[in-house]
Amino acid sequence: RVNGSRLMDSIHSTCEFGKAHPYGDHPTETGMARLSLKDDDKKARHWLIDQAKALGCTVTVDQMGNIFAVRPGKSAKAPVMMGSHLDTQPTGGRYDGILGVMAGLEVLRTLHENDYQTEGPVGIVNWTNEEGARFPIVTVSSGVWAGSIPLETAWNCAEVPTLMTDPSSAPQTIKQELQRIGFLGATPASHETNAIGAHFELHIEQGPILEDERQKIGVVTGAQGYNWYEVMVRGRDSHAGTTPLAARQDALLGAAKMIAASNTVARDLDGLITTGIFRAEPGSVNTMAHTVRFTLDIRHPSNERLAEMVERCRETFDRIAREDCERGVAVQWTTLTENVAVEFHRDCIAAIEEAAEDVCGRLPGAEEDKKLWRRMTSGAGHDSCHVSKRAPTAMIFTPTRNGMSHTPDEYCSPEDCILGAQVLLGAVVRYDAT
Amino acid sequence: RVNGSRLMDSIHSTCEFGKAHPYGDHPTETGMARLSLKDDDKKARHWLIDQAKALGCTVTVDQMGNIFAVRPGKSAKAPVMMGSHLDTQPTGGRYDGILGVMAGLEVLRTLHENDYQTEGPVGIVNWTNEEGARFPIVTVSSGVWAGSIPLETAWNCAEVPTLMTDPSSAPQTIKQELQRIGFLGATPASHETNAIGAHFELHIEQGPILEDERQKIGVVTGAQGYNWYEVMVRGRDSHAGTTPLAARQDALLGAAKMIAASNTVARDLDGLITTGIFRAEPGSVNTMAHTVRFTLDIRHPSNERLAEMVERCRETFDRIAREDCERGVAVQWTTLTENVAVEFHRDCIAAIEEAAEDVCGRLPGAEEDKKLWRRMTSGAGHDSCHVSKRAPTAMIFTPTRNGMSHTPDEYCSPEDCILGAQVLLGAVVRYDAT
Ligand SMILES: NC(=O)NCCC(=O)O
Ligand SMILES: NC(=O)NCCC(=O)O
Repeated sequence: RVNGSRLMDSIHSTCEFGKAHPYGDHPTETGMARLSLKDDDKKARHWLIDQAKALGCTVTVDQMGNIFAVRPGKSAKAPVMMGSHLDTQPTGGRYDGILGVMAGLEVLRTLHENDYQTEGPVGIVNWTNEEGARFPIVTVSSGVWAGSIPLETAWNCAEVPTLMTDPSSAPQTIKQELQRIGFLGATPASHETNAIGAHFELHIEQGPILEDERQKIGVVTGAQGYNWYEVMVRGRDSHAGTTPLAARQDALLGAAKMIAASNTVARDLDGLITTGIFRAEPGSVNTMAHTVRFTLDIRHPSNERLAEMVERCRETFDRIAREDCERGVAVQWTTLTENVAVEFHRDCIAAIEEAAEDVCGRLPGAEEDKKLWRRMTSGAGHDSCHVSKRAPTAMIFTPTRNGMSHTPDEYCSPEDCILGAQVLLGAVVRYDAT
Repeated sequence: RVNGSRLMDSIHSTCEFGKAHPYGDHPTETGMARLSLKDDDKKARHWLIDQAKALGCTVTVDQMGNIFAVRPGKSAKAPVMMGSHLDTQPTGGRYDGILGVMAGLEVLRTLHENDYQTEGPVGIVNWTNEEGARFPIVTVSSGVWAGSIPLETAWNCAEVPTLMTDPSSAPQTIKQELQRIGFLGATPASHETNAIGAHFELHIEQGPILEDERQKIGVVTGAQGYNWYEVMVRGRDSHAGTTPLAARQDALLGAAKMIAASNTVARDLDGLITTGIFRAEPGSVNTMAHTVRFTLDIRHPSNERLAEMVERCRETFDRIAREDCERGVAVQWTTLTENVAVEFHRDCIAAIEEAAEDVCGRLPGAEEDKKLWRRMTSGAGHDSCHVSKRAPTAMIFTPTRNGMSHTPDEYCSPEDCILGAQVLLGAVVRYDAT
């Protein structure tokens, strides 16, 4: 059995690195702003490596700064990995990603203190820049590892300039920042030379289903698809007081109309579309913007529907640019990342289900004949999505208060965190044994 | 008669301070980014003071950094001033404001070299931060001088953080920057202790009318009203992939809908509404913005219609915030500045008309019985609007290529610049003589 208080202590003590946005009086009532490859991320990384080494793990850092810590098993096959991420959103919480890494560490500690010999090696992996918040390619480093994103594309990905974390520095690339914090490893970021036997990821659900259903564990069988784009709208800067409406090429007005229209597309096709970043230049009250850049995050459980949403947005934006924006604006799309919907591996799913049944079956509520776990799909993307293309993979979800994530008061109770770690342990041991 | 080549040389040589955004091969084919109270503005100010002193002018700098350079007349009454501004938009041109100051200087030089004795003193004034581009209160320093804006409000006005001019420094206030560049004068910024006898401003039209009508000079009889607001929309940051549409409080979507709606208000009421600044926080692709701040520049020649536009925007934004933005957002307005429509003084208008008739009457085109000047009202705001409340005031407009201003290729031909300066000279001398 995992040590629950040790797990919670690991979560909260490492959240000292990058804590932000207090929302209550208790010292742990803060959110996080641990942007990928910033100094706080570096501190959390060093802490993790030290802890893993103390357990006798072999630690490898690859070209994307992914940290692999592996505990040897009886035989030397590809390791069963427990992966997630230590980076957060700029207004992130203490659980998204962090729970998965700390629970993986807790599993290793539990195996270690029980002198438990696994069949094959078992380890943990911290994937770099999962959030896509600082560098706008989500799950970029598992993507490189899986061969889905070229290494150069990832290395050259520049940070989002609007993040207010450090306005004094010019936008840095992933490679520059890996180098700066000493995490540009020599090991190729590749499933070919650094294979994984299976990948289990414990994560908060980030949605309301488990809480609404009063269930404790989600056995995640797949994730919906999602694409990210940057849309650039170009008009012409001119005077707000002397340029008649009919003579305007107002990039900001065009962008606003496009974003409003994208919301209609999302409703019509029953998906999600979000604009999180919006930048206007030159940024003066009485001058029309000549250039606006905004992002689109488009999601749908069906790949066909997802493609249809993208297509509809393209058509609608073109129409707005041409006909519904005075003298017109130009619109140009850049793809940041595209992720099809994925289905996880039945063997991993089975291992998690057995563990969930076992762990949840012993809970008080279970006596009343209520199943405390359920199958579900993920609304969010995860490194597991990329990894699943190269190794059997599945995920475990825990409840999330009010379904809220990517916000400082994101919360998963200690009981639920510990339960999730226990299921992770059970699943890994079961999978290893087969 | 003014010295035309000296005038053009003054314009283009001082535009070395802050030139930006080249659009052609010729060295003067660039725009300007001479933001108020930046180092380039400081250089232009020192140049102006040196030139004025060389003409025997008395130079005074007031608490807002307004520079008054006065050439004595036969008697010691309040001076007839020729005012405009040396600051520009971030993507500004070489004429907006600059023409007026340099033409004023050229008039003084012409009087000086002809040993022309005016009845009263005649001078030039450079008003600080006319554009409202760096510090978002337009014509703030003439406003303080006129008693329409409290000194403390002006001093504490902080620069717009989105301007990309110097990302390394924290937002500074007007007072801090006046101090830094050495232009925080001791003279009260007040019409009471530092009176002006009359105010003439030569400016490019910034609109298409003179060009369209093939006319050379606009005698400006007034200016339309315009108000500036910052609208803050507050929602809740949450996850772009797991937050159902119906559960969202998406500040960015709300703001986009409001801006689109403001355009409809402008059309319906035949006015102008522009959003030039838009900032979203935290600014992450897969997190909804919790806060968006955007500006509104609202204009109408009728004060009643202007008030109606503001009211309609308030109602519409409230409705969007309440009913048309999923779980709703909060919206809050801050007034940056409000300027009613103004009418200029008939004596100043008369002086300009006589000068225009005289100067334009001698032009080749005039032979064909075409009047080359016209009365008109200004779409843009000017320092003259504030000054007109405390001293007889009127303005002179020159043609503007394609009606385009607040953009790098803003252009007024040398012939038209010189003609404008000649009318300025004629108007000032006439007004002084009466
Ligand atoms: N799990 C998570 O929040 N990761 C970010 C990827 C996404 O945007 O879905
Ligand atoms: N003339 C000019 O462009 N000044 C700025 C004031 C305005 O926005 O109208």
